[in-house]
Amino acid sequence: MTTPLNFFGPGARAHHVGLAVQSIAALVPDAAITHDETQQVKVAFVDIAGQCIELIEPASDTSPVTDSLAKGQKLVHVAIEVPQIEAAITAARAHGFHRLARPVPATAFDERPIAWLFSRQYGLFELIEAAK
Amino acid sequence: MTTPLNFFGPGARAHHVGLAVQSIAALVPDAAITHDETQQVKVAFVDIAGQCIELIEPASDTSPVTDSLAKGQKLVHVAIEVPQIEAAITAARAHGFHRLARPVPATAFDERPIAWLFSRQYGLFELIEAAK
Repeated sequence: MTTPLNFFGPGARAHHVGLAVQSIAALVPDAAITHDETQQVKVAFVDIAGQCIELIEPASDTSPVTDSLAKGQKLVHVAIEVPQIEAAITAARAHGFHRLARPVPATAFDERPIAWLFSRQYGLFELIEAAK
Repeated sequence: MTTPLNFFGPGARAHHVGLAVQSIAALVPDAAITHDETQQVKVAFVDIAGQCIELIEPASDTSPVTDSLAKGQKLVHVAIEVPQIEAAITAARAHGFHRLARPVPATAFDERPIAWLFSRQYGLFELIEAAK
């Protein structure tokens, strides 16, 4: 039995899981790499048996994944695409999620807004606003 | 662009992502909890916007997720269902995965065999043999 947990409101759908790596190009030479200067990461998307995984490479020493890599932590977040990011943040707050920063446009998603949410129970989630 | 990475051979399909928690019952009171004595964990499955997530609670002080929780590491593995576990292990070895232990029956999957694979690049993966 799988219990549905509706944290992010109607229309939310799983997008990817983030996985920290030292070098995307060393692993996937033909990957399409996007450099997101705001997030200080380089990213590329891979599909492993139907699971969409965002490979995340630090683009600076203060990148948020630098620490993860140092600790050997590979999986760093779950990303959910939502119709309206502010409505999803409001829904998530009722389930114990805190917004870590205001939504900002993301290079990897055609400048659509993303936001970071954290729950002590469920960890780090990324919200991505769906294309209109 | 999403690059397909075929690590586990034909017929492999994503099953879930594992997430360590202190107490499943405290988070999801109506969850169907399975106690896997071999793995020293209690588990339950939830669906977050279409992403299947296995909540994993330590069932002993030496549980493999005890350390993860102590370090604040929530996401611990990606699980893939495969038609034949030995064939999938062979396929994965060619992509740098090491088998951590021989396949064992898993309570959470009707005693179907599971195996743990580790890659320094991609981290920890679980293989689950599909039902015949």
